Amino acid sequence: MMKLPLGYRYAAVYAGIRKTVKDDLALIVSDLPAATAGVFTQNRACAAPVRLCQRHLKISRGTASAILVNAGNANCATRTGEKVAAVTAKAVAKMQGIPINQVLVASTGVIGVELDASLILKALPALRNRLSSSNFEQVSRAIMTTDTRPKTAWAEVELARGAVNLAGMTKGAGMIMPMMATTLGFILTDAATSAATLRGMLREACEHSYNRISVDGDTSTNDTVLLLANGASGNKITKKDQENFLGALTHLMQDLAQQIVRDGEGARKLVTIEVEGARTDQDAARLARTIANSPLVKTAIAGSDPNWGRILCAAGNAGVAFEPSKVDIYFQQVRVCREGLAAPFDEESLTQKLNEKDVAIRFVIRGKGRGWARFWTCDFTEEYIKINGSYRT
Amino acid sequence: MMKLPLGYRYAAVYAGIRKTVKDDLALIVSDLPAATAGVFTQNRACAAPVRLCQRHLKISRGTASAILVNAGNANCATRTGEKVAAVTAKAVAKMQGIPINQVLVASTGVIGVELDASLILKALPALRNRLSSSNFEQVSRAIMTTDTRPKTAWAEVELARGAVNLAGMTKGAGMIMPMMATTLGFILTDAATSAATLRGMLREACEHSYNRISVDGDTSTNDTVLLLANGASGNKITKKDQENFLGALTHLMQDLAQQIVRDGEGARKLVTIEVEGARTDQDAARLARTIANSPLVKTAIAGSDPNWGRILCAAGNAGVAFEPSKVDIYFQQVRVCREGLAAPFDEESLTQKLNEKDVAIRFVIRGKGRGWARFWTCDFTEEYIKINGSYRT
Repeated sequence: MMKLPLGYRYAAVYAGIRKTVKDDLALIVSDLPAATAGVFTQNRACAAPVRLCQRHLKISRGTASAILVNAGNANCATRTGEKVAAVTAKAVAKMQGIPINQVLVASTGVIGVELDASLILKALPALRNRLSSSNFEQVSRAIMTTDTRPKTAWAEVELARGAVNLAGMTKGAGMIMPMMATTLGFILTDAATSAATLRGMLREACEHSYNRISVDGDTSTNDTVLLLANGASGNKITKKDQENFLGALTHLMQDLAQQIVRDGEGARKLVTIEVEGARTDQDAARLARTIANSPLVKTAIAGSDPNWGRILCAAGNAGVAFEPSKVDIYFQQVRVCREGLAAPFDEESLTQKLNEKDVAIRFVIRGKGRGWARFWTCDFTEEYIKINGSYRT
Repeated sequence: MMKLPLGYRYAAVYAGIRKTVKDDLALIVSDLPAATAGVFTQNRACAAPVRLCQRHLKISRGTASAILVNAGNANCATRTGEKVAAVTAKAVAKMQGIPINQVLVASTGVIGVELDASLILKALPALRNRLSSSNFEQVSRAIMTTDTRPKTAWAEVELARGAVNLAGMTKGAGMIMPMMATTLGFILTDAATSAATLRGMLREACEHSYNRISVDGDTSTNDTVLLLANGASGNKITKKDQENFLGALTHLMQDLAQQIVRDGEGARKLVTIEVEGARTDQDAARLARTIANSPLVKTAIAGSDPNWGRILCAAGNAGVAFEPSKVDIYFQQVRVCREGLAAPFDEESLTQKLNEKDVAIRFVIRGKGRGWARFWTCDFTEEYIKINGSYRT
């Protein structure tokens, strides 16, 4: 059983934003103002709710009490985007009796279609009535778009002064969807800490989780991950606790990020790519990312083909200096390339191993380099094209 | 009818490098030492023949008399790669009575499998016997791998002192193939010019042709484009002629490059992307490239879906500064997005227009920017996955 952090309540309703009758509006509130950190899309065409979150977090110096989130419409590239975000945030603030800058909003769904604020305003009373500490699961379902299943994770961390809990939810079946966009992630904890500490930890954990996954290499216009710490457990994260807490946070966020990849459009396999021996961790991450984004690597994995030539070729395009003749490549712990050349292996048995749902690729550069990175992607199947090539309507 | 440049001879034979009995070895010779320029893959894991070409062109200060090219094996990531390239080049030099550094070699096909030099050495006498000025077409067929058709182009240019001819051939059905790699291009002219001038012109023309196409965003380990000018027409490219000649060369190389995209794996459509109003041409090219490489854009085009949200989202990921609210987007000359927002259009009629074999996308940033770029790509169909997901054997 998931042990939820103290001091948070959740609600979800169907507001009529999407056509299918399925919850599409959700509210998360913290009973105490929570220290809050956010990471957002780097996309130039970022959506109105992203800009509102950035503005509010700046004004509030990293505190928030409520997150309003809708699915079915990204509120991006719309005439009324800014206004809809502001008006709905204001209504939540009034309803909850909190300053407007303590309300954050997030949207996911179709781009370029006006979001009707009145649908949200009308549904707010119902949302308030349903607020309950036990509706976490309902909210995780309300934020789904083309996801085939909800994605949640939790953790308990023993701090010096007592235990605290973390719970997270996320959505996304790839960075992109048919006319859909967005990865959203909400992580809540009842630990107490400052917004500045929280920001540093979120950035660090994100670098090793959400920033290390790819379904198709596209960054959406709405990506938002928020981390709230309301202190309801009464336990502060001391300096000594930080490493411990960061470890649990990173682990939880990796869990969520992997669930996204596993649910990637058309995906049948979760592929873990490890790069070792690069000059720096950054170089290693760049190599891993380029391998993960190569359609030729991803289609080979769909076909259970230990095609190391494609891995080497993709790595060669990463813009990172390395000596191909020092590279060993492993599929499922079986070495198929040694010092840049074909290594003998039992093809039949390896093909069978590659039919598993989890595929591991190791790219090892021999020598003194200590740069290391791990990255997750999925295989690339005909189903992906079917999903994304289909007409919007 | 193609009017071939003077002073070149061609030959192709089946040497047994690939399993299918189909010419796989070809020789192009220039009767006079030709000023020669080359552009090569930027991939770190570049193949032995690429390294040999770079070395020989440096030593010979940009002159060549023969190009030996094989299909069916990329001679890349192999134990004997350097040796095979050197031994076969040497044998051609001896046979033709020319210095070894005047021989260039190129390979395309499987990566990581040893190329048997003896197959090539045995076939050389047959190649010499077949050398003829009329075998251009045969050579263009011998260099094919998964290409469905040969790709050639030619041009006649009126210089101040008389006419010269250009003829080019290329191969590639995408930058990548099932365990295959490589785009090759050979362009021959009977104009007279220096190697330095030729290098400058090849680089410039390549920037607007081969460097502006993408099937799947992967750069192969063997990419090679060579331009030879043997002066057999007796007509020198004067300073005044340069713009004229460069125009014809660029046009010819764009023709070849477009043939590659049109023959892209699984492709049904040639997509021309034009970006206007960026700060610089470089920014425009980067925007166009990012749009062209986005699986979400390419699948939408396969589905004849004027999905401008995906274009805007892809552009936002290009790492280029622009204001989304100043962007207009056109599909087939129909404006679907105006100043970053949905523009009204007749959906049915546009969908019909998008069923054409040629799709045009314009991405216009309003304002004072003069940066412009054109880029070609193809749509992304289920057939691509079928071709690349299939098992190597």
